[in-house]
Amino acid sequence: MAVGTELLLGQIVDTNSSWIGEQLALAGIDSHFQTKVGDNLDRMIAAFEQALDRSDAVIVCGGLGPTPDDITREAIAAVMGVGLRRDEAVVERIRAMFYRRDRQMPANNLQQADVPVGARVMDVQPGTAPGLICPVSRDGGSGHPGGGKVIYAVPGVPWEMQKMVSECVLPDLQARAGERHVIRSRTLRTWGHSESGLAELLEPEMRRLDSTGEATIAFLASGMEGLKVRITAKAADDETAEGVLSRVESRARAVIGEAVFGADDDTMESVVVDLMQSQGLTLALAESVTGGLIAARLTDVPGASKVLRGAVVPYDREIKTGVLGAPDVNAVSSEMALAMAEGACRVLGADVGLATTGAAGPDPHEGAEAGTVWIGLHLDGEGEAARVRFNMARTMVRQLGTITALNLLRTRLLARAG
Amino acid sequence: MAVGTELLLGQIVDTNSSWIGEQLALAGIDSHFQTKVGDNLDRMIAAFEQALDRSDAVIVCGGLGPTPDDITREAIAAVMGVGLRRDEAVVERIRAMFYRRDRQMPANNLQQADVPVGARVMDVQPGTAPGLICPVSRDGGSGHPGGGKVIYAVPGVPWEMQKMVSECVLPDLQARAGERHVIRSRTLRTWGHSESGLAELLEPEMRRLDSTGEATIAFLASGMEGLKVRITAKAADDETAEGVLSRVESRARAVIGEAVFGADDDTMESVVVDLMQSQGLTLALAESVTGGLIAARLTDVPGASKVLRGAVVPYDREIKTGVLGAPDVNAVSSEMALAMAEGACRVLGADVGLATTGAAGPDPHEGAEAGTVWIGLHLDGEGEAARVRFNMARTMVRQLGTITALNLLRTRLLARAG
Repeated sequence: MAVGTELLLGQIVDTNSSWIGEQLALAGIDSHFQTKVGDNLDRMIAAFEQALDRSDAVIVCGGLGPTPDDITREAIAAVMGVGLRRDEAVVERIRAMFYRRDRQMPANNLQQADVPVGARVMDVQPGTAPGLICPVSRDGGSGHPGGGKVIYAVPGVPWEMQKMVSECVLPDLQARAGERHVIRSRTLRTWGHSESGLAELLEPEMRRLDSTGEATIAFLASGMEGLKVRITAKAADDETAEGVLSRVESRARAVIGEAVFGADDDTMESVVVDLMQSQGLTLALAESVTGGLIAARLTDVPGASKVLRGAVVPYDREIKTGVLGAPDVNAVSSEMALAMAEGACRVLGADVGLATTGAAGPDPHEGAEAGTVWIGLHLDGEGEAARVRFNMARTMVRQLGTITALNLLRTRLLARAG
Repeated sequence: MAVGTELLLGQIVDTNSSWIGEQLALAGIDSHFQTKVGDNLDRMIAAFEQALDRSDAVIVCGGLGPTPDDITREAIAAVMGVGLRRDEAVVERIRAMFYRRDRQMPANNLQQADVPVGARVMDVQPGTAPGLICPVSRDGGSGHPGGGKVIYAVPGVPWEMQKMVSECVLPDLQARAGERHVIRSRTLRTWGHSESGLAELLEPEMRRLDSTGEATIAFLASGMEGLKVRITAKAADDETAEGVLSRVESRARAVIGEAVFGADDDTMESVVVDLMQSQGLTLALAESVTGGLIAARLTDVPGASKVLRGAVVPYDREIKTGVLGAPDVNAVSSEMALAMAEGACRVLGADVGLATTGAAGPDPHEGAEAGTVWIGLHLDGEGEAARVRFNMARTMVRQLGTITALNLLRTRLLARAG
C-alpha cells in the first residue's frame, strides 16, 4: 500500500511499490495486489481492512513524516483497535539525528515517535521516521481469532524505505513464511546493442527457456544505466537457482559479447574505475556537451580519487582554446574532441584523456545537428575519436553521450589488457 | 486498476495510473484508489468487486491484448454476469489495421474482438485493442438495483490508453457526473527549511484551510530538487480555483520567505541561470566534493552557455594548487573553498566563482567528518564561505551539497539586486 494524495494526483510516480514488488519476487514471496490511497484516514482504514482480508501481510509505504497529513500511524492504530504511545527511545533517536546536524528538533517531529500500542519499532532507522512492525489479530473465515497477520510500515523516502525493507521486512516475512522456494535473478548490464538487437541475439536461448521453464529473460532500457538483460530463475533452493542462472548467463554472454559491461550492481563508471585502477592509469576529463556528467558519475564511485585527476568543463569556446590549448577549429568536430582529450591529459597531468563535445539541442551548434556527440580519447600517446547521434531530447543526448564515452574508454582498456 | 503481473514484480513501473490520476484531477473528478493486480482471473474479479463497492466508476488499464494472459475482457464479463460476443465491426477494424501494414492478421488477434454482452466499444481505437465502456448494475446499500456504475477498459500501451482516456473516458465521466468542478494546483519550490520546519511555518494557514476547505497544502521532499510545497484548490471553475491558489500562495510565500526559490516548473538551476543573466554576470565553478554535479545541473538548462564559462573539477589535491592556484591549506576548509572560488574566476575568466570541497564519505577526508561540505563564493571581489553537514550516504551528501551551493549563490544574487 502506497500512501499519498500526490500519488493519486499523478504528481509523483510510485516507484517504491515497484521496487518492493521486485524484492518480494526475489525473496520468493507472492505479492498479489498493490494499492495507492490518499492521505485520508477513512479510506486508509478501508484499504487496510481489504488488504488484510486478502493477504497475510501488508507493507505500507509513506505517511510516517512529521506533518499533519502524515496519518499512517493513526490509521494502523485504528485497524489494530489500539491507541498511540510516545516511544521515548525513538524521541531520543530523532533528537540525536538533529543534534548531529547542529540543529534543534522541531516540536512536530515528536509525532514521528508516536507508535500504535503493541507495535514494534524496527532497529534500522536511517532517517527521522521509525519503521513499525504491527501485529494484527484477525478473525479468519473459520471464526477463530488471532490470524497472526502483520502490517509493516516504512517511510516513503526511497533510501530509508529500501534499507528497512531489505534489512527488517524481508527477513521477518521469510521467517514467518517458513520454508519456500526461491527466486533468484541476475542482471547483465549492456551497452552497444538496441533492445530489439538484444532480443534477436537471445531469441534461441529464450525459446529454449520457454520450453524448459527453468528461467525467463527480460529487457529493460535504463537510459544512462544502459540496457539491462534480466535472467530470473525459480527453483527449490538457492544452489539450484544459482546453477541455472550461471548456465543461462554464460550462454547470454557468449552471444552478446563485449557489450556486456558488468552484472547486477556493476555500473559503467564502477567498471571503468576498476579497469583504470588495475592498469595503474589516471584519468582527466574535458566535458563540453556532457557538462560535468561524466565527472559526476565517476566521482560517485567511492575510491574514484585513486583514478580521476580531475575534469575541465570548457563550456565557453574560449576555455577550450585558452585553458585546454585546443586549436581554433570547429567546436563540434573530431579535431576538437581529440585536442580536448590531449589538452585535459596535459593540463591535469593524467595518463588518459577523455573528452566530449557536441550539440545537446534543442538547436544545432556550430553547424552540427542537435543530438550530435563527438568523443575523443587520448591514451598511450594515441588519439581516437568517435561520433554518435541521438535523435532525442537534450537531457537524454547528454546522458547517452556520457555512457557512450565511458564505454569507448572501457573497450579501449579491455583491448589494451589483451 | 492496472493489470499485469509484470507490474507487481516491479519489472515495469506503472506510469499509466499516474497519468490517468493527473487527468482525472485536472477534470475535477475525485480519484480515491489505484490498484495493481496480476493476470489472474479470480483476483481481477475480486479487485473489480471491491473497486465497484467503493467507487462510481472504474478505469482498468491493460490485459486487452491478443495473448492468453490478456483476460480483462473475461473478468469484466464475469463481473457483469454476461458472456462474450464477437464484435464483427471490431474484427474488421483489426483486419484493416494489419492490411495497412501489409500483414496478415494472426488468428490470436480475433480474441481482441470479443466484448462482454452489453458493453459498448469506444469509437477511438488507435491500436488493435478496442476500448470498452461496460455498464454494471449494482445493488446499492439501499437495496435497489441498477446503481448505474461503469467500468472503462483501455489498453496498457501508453499512447493508445492516453488517446482513449482523453477522447472517450473523460468526456463520458464528466457527462455522467453532471455538475463539474476543477482541481488546480501550484507547487512552491523551497530550499532552506526542513519539512517539519515548513509545516510549523504554514500551520496557521493549513488550519485556516482545514476550516474553509477551499484548498489543501502538502509537502514533498525531493532531494536535489529541494522541498516542494503543493497547494491544491478545488472550485466550480478555473477562475475561482486560480484565485484561491494565488491567495494561498501569497500567504505561504509571506511566511516561508526567501527559501521559496520558484514555482511549478522552476528549478534551482534555471532560477540561478535567470538571475545571473538578468544581472549580466558570468559564472565559473570549482567542484571537488560535488565532482561536476553543479556543472551538470546548470548545463542541463538550455541557454546556460550565456552564463556559464566553465568548471574545473580538481579531484586531486595537486589540481587545486596547480591549476586553480590555491594555497597549500587543508583541502576541506573555508580557506580552500574561498581560494578555489577565486581561482575558478581567474582561470576561467568569469565574474562569479562558486566552489565546493568536502568529505562525501563514507570515510572522513583531511580531518573532516564524512558529510561535511564547504561552499565558497567569490563575487564583486568579495569572498564568502559556508559549511554544512549532511549525515547521509555519499550520493545524498553530493546532491544536497549541490543544491545548497546553488542556493547560496541565489540568495547572494537576490541581496545584490536589492
